[in-house]
Amino acid sequence: MSITDKAGNTFTVQSCGIRLDFSNQKLDQSVLDGLVKLALDRGIQKAFNAMRQGEVVNLSEKRSALHTSLRDPSKDVPFGLEVHQSLEKIIEFAKAVRSGKWLGATGKKIRTVVNIGIGGSDMGPRAVWHALRPNHPKIDIRFLAAADGVTFDRIFSDLDAASTLIVVSSKSWRTQETHFNALAALEWFKNQGIDGKNLAKHVVVVSSNPNAANSLNLPQENQFPIWDWVGGRFSVWSAIGLPVAVGLGAKVFLELLSGAHCMDEHASIAPITSNLPALLALIAYRNITQLGVSSYCFLAYDERLRIVVDWLQQLEMESLGKHRTTTGQAVDTPTAIAVWGGHGNESQHSFYQWLREGTSKTAIDICWSIKPGHSHKQLHNVLIANAKAQTKALTSREQGDENFNVVTVLTLEILDAKTLGSLMALYEHKTVMLAFLFGLNAFDQPGVELGKKLAREILGS
Amino acid sequence: MSITDKAGNTFTVQSCGIRLDFSNQKLDQSVLDGLVKLALDRGIQKAFNAMRQGEVVNLSEKRSALHTSLRDPSKDVPFGLEVHQSLEKIIEFAKAVRSGKWLGATGKKIRTVVNIGIGGSDMGPRAVWHALRPNHPKIDIRFLAAADGVTFDRIFSDLDAASTLIVVSSKSWRTQETHFNALAALEWFKNQGIDGKNLAKHVVVVSSNPNAANSLNLPQENQFPIWDWVGGRFSVWSAIGLPVAVGLGAKVFLELLSGAHCMDEHASIAPITSNLPALLALIAYRNITQLGVSSYCFLAYDERLRIVVDWLQQLEMESLGKHRTTTGQAVDTPTAIAVWGGHGNESQHSFYQWLREGTSKTAIDICWSIKPGHSHKQLHNVLIANAKAQTKALTSREQGDENFNVVTVLTLEILDAKTLGSLMALYEHKTVMLAFLFGLNAFDQPGVELGKKLAREILGS
Repeated sequence: MSITDKAGNTFTVQSCGIRLDFSNQKLDQSVLDGLVKLALDRGIQKAFNAMRQGEVVNLSEKRSALHTSLRDPSKDVPFGLEVHQSLEKIIEFAKAVRSGKWLGATGKKIRTVVNIGIGGSDMGPRAVWHALRPNHPKIDIRFLAAADGVTFDRIFSDLDAASTLIVVSSKSWRTQETHFNALAALEWFKNQGIDGKNLAKHVVVVSSNPNAANSLNLPQENQFPIWDWVGGRFSVWSAIGLPVAVGLGAKVFLELLSGAHCMDEHASIAPITSNLPALLALIAYRNITQLGVSSYCFLAYDERLRIVVDWLQQLEMESLGKHRTTTGQAVDTPTAIAVWGGHGNESQHSFYQWLREGTSKTAIDICWSIKPGHSHKQLHNVLIANAKAQTKALTSREQGDENFNVVTVLTLEILDAKTLGSLMALYEHKTVMLAFLFGLNAFDQPGVELGKKLAREILGS
Repeated sequence: MSITDKAGNTFTVQSCGIRLDFSNQKLDQSVLDGLVKLALDRGIQKAFNAMRQGEVVNLSEKRSALHTSLRDPSKDVPFGLEVHQSLEKIIEFAKAVRSGKWLGATGKKIRTVVNIGIGGSDMGPRAVWHALRPNHPKIDIRFLAAADGVTFDRIFSDLDAASTLIVVSSKSWRTQETHFNALAALEWFKNQGIDGKNLAKHVVVVSSNPNAANSLNLPQENQFPIWDWVGGRFSVWSAIGLPVAVGLGAKVFLELLSGAHCMDEHASIAPITSNLPALLALIAYRNITQLGVSSYCFLAYDERLRIVVDWLQQLEMESLGKHRTTTGQAVDTPTAIAVWGGHGNESQHSFYQWLREGTSKTAIDICWSIKPGHSHKQLHNVLIANAKAQTKALTSREQGDENFNVVTVLTLEILDAKTLGSLMALYEHKTVMLAFLFGLNAFDQPGVELGKKLAREILGS
């Protein structure tokens, strides 16, 4: 849905519980019309729909990108059967662990799940858990990503192995950090007397490599599938989301998926003039290629969205941090800009000085939820008053100043699992549509290979 | 100390347990010689020493900036007597709380300290606590900054008021978020039966406003001083550091101060050619004003330095995010660039793709500790191998590519309280020296005022 103001401008659009307000961008109706025409000329919605139907959009790796299938209630979509089979297994497992049907080897209930995974196997579930976790979780979820013994000790040192479950997630099963962290965790279990066959009650794996479970001497049923047509940074909807399904319950996980599916349908069907991800992508494209905006800052006026910043940073920078098109030509514009941000209210007392009086041009998304996730009315009033005031303050720099901020306001009716799913899918689609505009492959990451090779050489392995 | 390589280049300097390696910057000896000459021409070290001696360097607010006095073992420095008096009070309080001499109103030992403060009253202590906290802290420290009921509930919902102490920190005592958070905390105490005179055992305040304690009906001895000659973002060394003194113990807090003092002396005395903060500032100045570097990324290969990224972001962006000189003229170069970053090893699986193949020019600091803070040898080997490999990979982009990364490697002998103090002081001095080079006032933040005014208007207060 789009909302037209008195001047005839349509700078407010909404869908799936999310409202976007572009009125603090440097836009007028004719610019917007031009961007809509660009979208039609480049066929970004058509390309998006082809992606959903399984076209090989990841040309370098010759793969489809079917994260939309992961949340489609219909089995009649590409890989629908595999997806539903896997989802049933996820739900069954989450229910078993939460109900106490699944117990540790000594008969104790599982109280903590540690996710061992990095990059795409970490940030999605970490962001969702931080957003939705209750104040008194029945089962706590912790995240071990880097090969860093400090992180390891901080996560494991107060845990009881008998009530701890680890989920080892690696799509390729060749991720060095995850491999060494899993070995350290198995050693930790052993030191607390859990090893051999007993590990089957404390370790499950998520991988597309069929030998993953076997390589840890675990039964095959301890393995959850993922597929090469799901990119790591688009994978929280798959078994990579297993820890949050266990921590939040199957119902909440299904709501998350349904929110994402809502945005999938919207992105496929809505005309460009009221299409949330297309408009976000088009405005970002113009800000980067025409207005000289040099970084993009996500400011959440909500504690729950803090880790979404990190997830978004990976999503955009890994997908679009490229300077060659799908056909290998050098792009003639800048592509992705640095993505950063934080809690908006905290940031006011930190880097807002720079946004207001520094020497840069910055694109900002400010996001808040109308309904608070708590009962402190006065705190919510203060928080939202600040979010609104900053939207004005950030876009009213000194007269004649060549530097500026452009702001999109994202208002959520309520920040629940469904809206979070919609929000994350919105950014996924924005990223993919931006890639279509730039002519980039959003789904590979060739630039990370050299670093891996050099690290192996240094380690002599 | 500076180390000269075979070619006669001096790209490695070290002091106070920190080694800087500039060999992956775009430098040669003649460029470096030119920068050293610039430092001498602009008198940045002279200006730094004048700052230490109390010169009014914050011209807009007509104040000195004497954070160096806060860690000077001599009382014979500006405000030395006040500083030592305050430090004794901090130490006495930390010891009393830790030993159980200071008890809650019902006779229970304090188990958790919640710091209520935002910006400079939050990030310094938060960064230090995250860096140095033990795996099993005797007293846990939590941080409430934003006016966000979600954060409030997540911090307080599992606490027992009878064993909880809050530290309310606000230099001006007019910080809106801190005010409302403190009110919510007092309400929480009341709901658990602690109010009136009993609050004196559960609430202390840090402020330069003499009426702070009184305004909460607390005895005057519950107030710890701070002064207008300490900027918020330079204040962790003052009573703003009280929560970490309680959490880590007085001895560790004093080591932190001694590490900072080591760097103060180094910055004052060392010739520019081997002066760590001066070289960091000079190279940053060139990267920004001559090489077109558009953002600065701090990559810690150590979990413990994760929050130092946020602290550094505030320090640089709030101090240097300005486009007018101390005398009000528009600067004719870019000044501060966006500061962002994260855990280096995690970031490899996120935005390194962008650093390697995107369309930006980025300055990067990579930091690691030679001695690990844990006993997982293999994890440490993997981590450091990755840090070293990435230093190479990030600086070897495709031939003919106009985009690039420049990297400074910071190697710590060991990450303990002393070296952390040195590291944070190093960045403080880099920031101040950069301000001298740009001709900026590093110590005010005029750009945050409009937002505060607008928020008050929206709240009708």
